[in-house]
Amino acid sequence: MARDVAVIGVGMTKFGEFWDRGYRSLITEAGSKAIIDARIDGKDIDAVYVGSMSPGRLIGQEHVGALVADYAGLVGVPAARVEAACSSGGLALHQAYLAIKSGLYDIVVVGGVEKMTDVSTEHATVALAGAADQEWEAFHGITFPGLYALMARRHMMDYGTTEEQISLISVKNHANGKLNPYAQYQYDVTLEDVMKSSMVADPLRLMHCSPITDGAATVVLASGEKAKKVCENPIWIKGSALATDTLSLHGRKSITKVEASAMAGKKAYQMAKVKPSKIDFAEVHDCFAIAEILAIESLGFCKIGKGGEMVENGETWIDSRIPINTSGGLKAKGHPVGATGIAQAIEATWQLRGQADKRQVKGAKTGLTQNVGGSGATCTVHIFSEEK
Amino acid sequence: MARDVAVIGVGMTKFGEFWDRGYRSLITEAGSKAIIDARIDGKDIDAVYVGSMSPGRLIGQEHVGALVADYAGLVGVPAARVEAACSSGGLALHQAYLAIKSGLYDIVVVGGVEKMTDVSTEHATVALAGAADQEWEAFHGITFPGLYALMARRHMMDYGTTEEQISLISVKNHANGKLNPYAQYQYDVTLEDVMKSSMVADPLRLMHCSPITDGAATVVLASGEKAKKVCENPIWIKGSALATDTLSLHGRKSITKVEASAMAGKKAYQMAKVKPSKIDFAEVHDCFAIAEILAIESLGFCKIGKGGEMVENGETWIDSRIPINTSGGLKAKGHPVGATGIAQAIEATWQLRGQADKRQVKGAKTGLTQNVGGSGATCTVHIFSEEK
Repeated sequence: MARDVAVIGVGMTKFGEFWDRGYRSLITEAGSKAIIDARIDGKDIDAVYVGSMSPGRLIGQEHVGALVADYAGLVGVPAARVEAACSSGGLALHQAYLAIKSGLYDIVVVGGVEKMTDVSTEHATVALAGAADQEWEAFHGITFPGLYALMARRHMMDYGTTEEQISLISVKNHANGKLNPYAQYQYDVTLEDVMKSSMVADPLRLMHCSPITDGAATVVLASGEKAKKVCENPIWIKGSALATDTLSLHGRKSITKVEASAMAGKKAYQMAKVKPSKIDFAEVHDCFAIAEILAIESLGFCKIGKGGEMVENGETWIDSRIPINTSGGLKAKGHPVGATGIAQAIEATWQLRGQADKRQVKGAKTGLTQNVGGSGATCTVHIFSEEK
Repeated sequence: MARDVAVIGVGMTKFGEFWDRGYRSLITEAGSKAIIDARIDGKDIDAVYVGSMSPGRLIGQEHVGALVADYAGLVGVPAARVEAACSSGGLALHQAYLAIKSGLYDIVVVGGVEKMTDVSTEHATVALAGAADQEWEAFHGITFPGLYALMARRHMMDYGTTEEQISLISVKNHANGKLNPYAQYQYDVTLEDVMKSSMVADPLRLMHCSPITDGAATVVLASGEKAKKVCENPIWIKGSALATDTLSLHGRKSITKVEASAMAGKKAYQMAKVKPSKIDFAEVHDCFAIAEILAIESLGFCKIGKGGEMVENGETWIDSRIPINTSGGLKAKGHPVGATGIAQAIEATWQLRGQADKRQVKGAKTGLTQNVGGSGATCTVHIFSEEK
């Protein structure tokens, strides 16, 4: 456990609908930017990890670990694709962290990528439903807006959470996304815009849902020793944890408590030796607006059931108690599934380096990222710090 | 690098066409057997890895890491799916090895699984073509028999390898498979049977091709310290290496030299501090009969170009110089893609424990497994030993 792990470079594409660009072009751009940012050469790279959820169904291509190594000019280098649905990026980060901890690899490049707009929205929705339980959920016709609507409705029933509170999350995330040049949607929305948008799955409306997005993101990790040699401003990964829950929603004791998030969070806090109160900002998995409430509750930023109030009190905006999703989150930044967990790590790195421009959280020293797969069957939590 | 890693338990399903069984049932059987074989409890398990190539396209299900943890009764435990086409199993083994080396996990369960017969053969062939380069190969209509036929034809041209030599591999592997109760095909075939079987992609005939198979395989790995506590006969992983090559065949200097295999082999030999001459037996990736020749050449069991002769001289049978694919190989044992790399590790474990029954290689002390993805874009090599 002696080896430390640091982020020494980051790079991402703009997120959006890119009908003139392919999977290879996106991940190559993100990877090149990260390698340039890290000021390393290809020959320094010991291994490559790629988080990608469903390239088989979305672009007819599996085996994307080798593909990415090939297109990055890293032929020969060990490369692996990992997948845990919407948390594929966070999972890739955890595997890369383990790979460095193992002592076998010193510098590891971790990419996340998804190309989702080459197929119809219906096809993408079916592919995404592969993150749910095929036999007990997807086969019967439910897709993700429906699953999260169940969680939202139950949260409203149990804790009095309101549609206004849920909608305020979209308002804040759009306000943040407006400040992020990489975001898919860089404009404000009003509470009225959100609450009058078309119903998708009651109580979730269009403006509560993250979009279908193309994009890629890459970070370069290094062992502590290497990081100190090649990097002036390494950002340290102080905690990296992964946990699971039942694949289907019906198997859980509570559908409003994301146990995998609570478990991964607890472990990450232990590794980093910090408490939730010491976290200066967090990027969490707001695939649907309700998920941001479930995230801040499960991560201990407020008590269970109090997430809606916390949002209503304005405690999650930039320059408030704990800024959540300064990047714009999945709602405004976009959600190219495999890239999301890596893009969260990039936002954390920029914040801790003081490079987040108009989104900068003043005095940010410790940040957290939380990436969720499916309705919560997989969760990864990472804690980043400017100090070793 | 101080931590050692050992196999402490193994289990697999019979390989075959199981129209009455699903993905979940197969991996649960393999996992249960491995956990019983390891004599551990579920609560001892720190993490789960699953190698699976294309469950999204074959059974409409991604997110199979969490699925397997769930169905194994291990809700909460960190779980990851990894994928590198036909080498997904070997890749899972490498990631589990790294996970233990990292110091974060002590006991890790690694499964491989594929359920391939729920779809038509055409659909399965298209899914498998996702292991090739979609844009430069698969899109233009070539599938894997065609890619390996190109390699075979070129090997015949450059080195005088004959159809008889290639066919003898199928004869040997069926003879071995006949002795393996887990094999899909437990019967002999004659040289004439092979050479008169229908042509698939010249010069490869039906009996040179591994089948479409359902099946699952699981091994339990432990750190050296844990292994010594809980296991009487741990089998030590002395080398674990991963390498890549261009995704498409046309990008390579030579299409008859599997560079990723040579590189992974070299690294694994270095880690294990052994030479090819010290390997007592090997399980290699004979997805097509020619691939076994490419494997034994790239791993240094004979000179490049001499694989055909080595086969013709009978040097690869059980009780000969170096027994290859005592399990029956992919040809006779079957090839449930994600399970293959794990099943190879199981055969190595059984051989080194002296539990291979009629297939037992006398005095086997060191064994090697080689698992190839696509036409050679990914390769993993593992070296196992009865001695620490």
